[in-house]
Amino acid sequence: MGKVKLDEIDHQILDMLIDNTRTPFTDIAKKLLISAGTVHVRVKKMEEAGIIQGSSLTVDYVKLGYAFIAYVGIFLEKTHQTKFVIERLNQIPNVTVAHITTGKFNIFCKIRAKDTNDAKNIIFRIDDIDGISRTETMISLEESINDKKRLMHTIFNEL
Amino acid sequence: MGKVKLDEIDHQILDMLIDNTRTPFTDIAKKLLISAGTVHVRVKKMEEAGIIQGSSLTVDYVKLGYAFIAYVGIFLEKTHQTKFVIERLNQIPNVTVAHITTGKFNIFCKIRAKDTNDAKNIIFRIDDIDGISRTETMISLEESINDKKRLMHTIFNEL
Amino acid sequence: MGKVKLDEIDHQILDMLIDNTRTPFTDIAKKLLISAGTVHVRVKKMEEAGIIQGSSLTVDYVKLGYAFIAYVGIFLEKTHQTKFVIERLNQIPNVTVAHITTGKFNIFCKIRAKDTNDAKNIIFRIDDIDGISRTETMISLEESINDKKRLMHTIFNEL
Amino acid sequence: MGKVKLDEIDHQILDMLIDNTRTPFTDIAKKLLISAGTVHVRVKKMEEAGIIQGSSLTVDYVKLGYAFIAYVGIFLEKTHQTKFVIERLNQIPNVTVAHITTGKFNIFCKIRAKDTNDAKNIIFRIDDIDGISRTETMISLEESINDKKRLMHTIFNEL
Amino acid sequence: MGKVKLDEIDHQILDMLIDNTRTPFTDIAKKLLISAGTVHVRVKKMEEAGIIQGSSLTVDYVKLGYAFIAYVGIFLEKTHQTKFVIERLNQIPNVTVAHITTGKFNIFCKIRAKDTNDAKNIIFRIDDIDGISRTETMISLEESINDKKRLMHTIFNEL
Amino acid sequence: MGKVKLDEIDHQILDMLIDNTRTPFTDIAKKLLISAGTVHVRVKKMEEAGIIQGSSLTVDYVKLGYAFIAYVGIFLEKTHQTKFVIERLNQIPNVTVAHITTGKFNIFCKIRAKDTNDAKNIIFRIDDIDGISRTETMISLEESINDKKRLMHTIFNEL
Amino acid sequence: MGKVKLDEIDHQILDMLIDNTRTPFTDIAKKLLISAGTVHVRVKKMEEAGIIQGSSLTVDYVKLGYAFIAYVGIFLEKTHQTKFVIERLNQIPNVTVAHITTGKFNIFCKIRAKDTNDAKNIIFRIDDIDGISRTETMISLEESINDKKRLMHTIFNEL
Amino acid sequence: MGKVKLDEIDHQILDMLIDNTRTPFTDIAKKLLISAGTVHVRVKKMEEAGIIQGSSLTVDYVKLGYAFIAYVGIFLEKTHQTKFVIERLNQIPNVTVAHITTGKFNIFCKIRAKDTNDAKNIIFRIDDIDGISRTETMISLEESINDKKRLMHTIFNEL
Repeated sequence: MGKVKLDEIDHQILDMLIDNTRTPFTDIAKKLLISAGTVHVRVKKMEEAGIIQGSSLTVDYVKLGYAFIAYVGIFLEKTHQTKFVIERLNQIPNVTVAHITTGKFNIFCKIRAKDTNDAKNIIFRIDDIDGISRTETMISLEESINDKKRLMHTIFNEL
Repeated sequence: MGKVKLDEIDHQILDMLIDNTRTPFTDIAKKLLISAGTVHVRVKKMEEAGIIQGSSLTVDYVKLGYAFIAYVGIFLEKTHQTKFVIERLNQIPNVTVAHITTGKFNIFCKIRAKDTNDAKNIIFRIDDIDGISRTETMISLEESINDKKRLMHTIFNEL
Repeated sequence: MGKVKLDEIDHQILDMLIDNTRTPFTDIAKKLLISAGTVHVRVKKMEEAGIIQGSSLTVDYVKLGYAFIAYVGIFLEKTHQTKFVIERLNQIPNVTVAHITTGKFNIFCKIRAKDTNDAKNIIFRIDDIDGISRTETMISLEESINDKKRLMHTIFNEL
Repeated sequence: MGKVKLDEIDHQILDMLIDNTRTPFTDIAKKLLISAGTVHVRVKKMEEAGIIQGSSLTVDYVKLGYAFIAYVGIFLEKTHQTKFVIERLNQIPNVTVAHITTGKFNIFCKIRAKDTNDAKNIIFRIDDIDGISRTETMISLEESINDKKRLMHTIFNEL
Repeated sequence: MGKVKLDEIDHQILDMLIDNTRTPFTDIAKKLLISAGTVHVRVKKMEEAGIIQGSSLTVDYVKLGYAFIAYVGIFLEKTHQTKFVIERLNQIPNVTVAHITTGKFNIFCKIRAKDTNDAKNIIFRIDDIDGISRTETMISLEESINDKKRLMHTIFNEL
Repeated sequence: MGKVKLDEIDHQILDMLIDNTRTPFTDIAKKLLISAGTVHVRVKKMEEAGIIQGSSLTVDYVKLGYAFIAYVGIFLEKTHQTKFVIERLNQIPNVTVAHITTGKFNIFCKIRAKDTNDAKNIIFRIDDIDGISRTETMISLEESINDKKRLMHTIFNEL
Repeated sequence: MGKVKLDEIDHQILDMLIDNTRTPFTDIAKKLLISAGTVHVRVKKMEEAGIIQGSSLTVDYVKLGYAFIAYVGIFLEKTHQTKFVIERLNQIPNVTVAHITTGKFNIFCKIRAKDTNDAKNIIFRIDDIDGISRTETMISLEESINDKKRLMHTIFNEL
Repeated sequence: MGKVKLDEIDHQILDMLIDNTRTPFTDIAKKLLISAGTVHVRVKKMEEAGIIQGSSLTVDYVKLGYAFIAYVGIFLEKTHQTKFVIERLNQIPNVTVAHITTGKFNIFCKIRAKDTNDAKNIIFRIDDIDGISRTETMISLEESINDKKRLMHTIFNEL
């Protein structure tokens, strides 16, 4: 990665994309007083360098009725089951994040559910995966920060 | 939220946007054999209904040198400091997620760092926020799942 | 529930019933300067709306020789045994409350016993239910609050 | 208590009252082929002996919008604050039960709330009571058993 | 026990025996200005009432080379094995105390050993008893109090 | 201690004293076919060598109304308070054993009480000693083994 | 060990060897104004007495790319597997230290790895040893002290 | 480090030094059929590259009367005291290793002591360092592996 060097123009393009991924290249070009083609070339370069991977929709989970967030710590019977269990977790769409971790848990995952009852059913579905011996759940009472933009600005400014 | 009813066209638009937020509306229109204007109207409607909030860049943190992920559980001296501490956490860009939680921690957050040493400095910065009495850290050995698309497809299919 | 609207009369009836479920309707009527028939109609309406479910005896467990209270946290071998275990717990009259919980326990229940030895026998009976792998017990040294009336007054005042 | 001896008639009266506290004495009398006066005398005797204390309303908390149950373990700074803290807890109507306990907590209480957010506010209110250094919360995913009738039948049959 | 009433003479006899179990009755008699026969009768009465069970040697474990004390918490696979495990523990002379307990352990016992290595062997012997799934050990760095005399004086003074 | 060598006679004397400390020397002498003077000399020798320290009464705590046993783990604010806290514990007769320990507790002690309420008061008295920040209590449901005789026989047989 | 008595010359030789094991005997001799033969004899004597066992290389693990240190606590299924598991651990070169311990772990070991991913593979290899039921890992964020010289000086000064 | 390339001769030299740091270069030269000067040059090169840092004495701690090993987990009041506390730990020679760690402890260290009593004094000395709020100790019952040679062979073979 060391060789990728970003100049001032790259940084300004990234800053605009971080704030709104769908900003049309023509708007970016207008603001930076460069051609849309240049924007296109710069973004392509950064995509090829692996800096930008893609973009994802952000939705209002509360409005969508999925306000319930929980973290589930998983104890496995044997760690050689890790890969198999991760595959099974991947089949449960409510599991949005899963990590292999140090500490007391083997796997640690984040789930989004509709409410207490929905969470119970998801946790039961996780508990019944072969190879899982036990789980411990921690409920979120409030999602106070969920923002990767601050980090992205920081990372890109370092490049 | 109950009144928002999505039809088949809406679902297909959403499915394409989930897979690539930057898909041009003209491409969506072509695939669905409708006009780009219709796509625009539909997306606008879903944005106004709060279904779609926006979009965010996805980057390759490993390639960017930020491969180290940790979860930090925070014990406060007093819970009336919660709001103040969340504001301070918000000033540390490496804290990408923070929750007020049940269980033994008052606040539970996720950090991304360059390596062990960088993580140590971030954890020390967190530890020194006024009102925090102690923290416990759990290191991710592998981020096996980080994918909200499966959940979004599921949620939208229910609407 | 939104449609049930309680007026001042309803509230006064409820306040009297909360304090003594067996208050005769004629006494309530006399105090509120309305007819006993009106009281009857109002109570019936609230029963049909599901606000009032019924009433239960309160007894002095200490005088009855059942002064020993313990909370028992249950670890299951597998969560798909939850329903079966709850049924077995239901056959032990000393288990007055049982919850499926988050955190380290799968099931959390409250027991009332005569004394230490009686508690031991009840805990042993719980421990030996198929599907339970382990239990942890917490002894109550004093039941300082056991009062749902304050909550009921609060809830009804909100309606 | 040892001297209180219940005969068959007493048991049948108690069984009916346990199932419905508001059963009119005339109904009880009719079923048992005795006079209402006798029922009255028997009940009075059991009240004076302290067997029966009174009766309480039972309501459908789910229908009333109070479906969220949590157990909160409290760590005190100093145990001589126990009495003071119990008094403060008593001012929060959502705290329906509180025990002084053995094990890691000083006080252990049960709260009923509307939802996650309401629970958060109640927990914060508890956390801010003087003398409380920390709390740990366990969320109920389902209240599977809440029934004192089985125990009452058992106790009364032993008398 | 209620009926056993101790008078001043009984108390003085007990106080002397607590301090030295082997004090000859003639010495006691002389000090209290009563006959040895009276002492004998009084002691016999208290033995028959179950107040005094017997006496035990006290030895200097440090001088005897048994200075190492540890507490071992035992987790059973199933509690119906409790009786069997207690019998096996009873065959290990180093286990001087064993309790069935509440909290995280099923059985909690105290062992005396020669040194670290001896303790290891005793713990291994305990760990290998059928029905024991796991143990946790806590080492004593100093036995600061080991004295039942203060309690005995208190108890006897209450009689 | 190495130089103290016990012969067969010594062992037989010790065995009898372990079983009943008050066995008159004349009885021991008769059984072993030696003179009472010899018994006296032997016992004196073992006392001087520090093998025998004295003897203590054994009482039936259950019959005496002291059936409730608990272990209390103590967390200190600072370990330099250890000595002071031990002295304070020594003023509470119900604390029969206290150890400075490794693991999570600083001091670990055993208490005997009349019942749950008495235990609560003793624990509160401990909790209020200056320098103690917190305690955790484990209740004994049954004292299954309390017997030092097996160990004494073993130790003496090794000499 | 008691009989080994070290004089001033021995101490000075040890002090030099502690600081640099490879110091030639001729250099030591020169500094102490004694013959190299004397140094040789003294060192030999201390080797034979078991004071000096040998010497080991010290390397810069960070420079060698092995900067990642973790402590792994191991829970065994049964302690009679301890010896077998230790042998298996001995086949993993990254396990540089392993102890049989008191407390919650049966075995506690230290590993050195290249990075997070390498650590994961080593931990997985440990987890899959027969007889190990579970492990818990604690990551070192900084090795602040790793120095046996201070202790050696202290020990030798006591001899 | 990448540029340092070790050839077969380097590896053989390292293997011999790992097994005995004091092996004279002339012995190494003889075995490898090269000149002592070559050995000297090679070792110097590896020292300059930072591969070899130096060497340390290995002693028999059991024979030296320092058989007692414990791990001490330290909780700090505030992490900004970390550096200060490490400096204080560095003044206690018995602390041979100390890490800043993730998980529940802030600092985790290893101590060597003479026996239980010596360990108690060292732990008390640690506990009394300003900024330390609490410690937890885990005792080693047996040091089963303490060997860096296997790892060194592995690392050097990779170069």
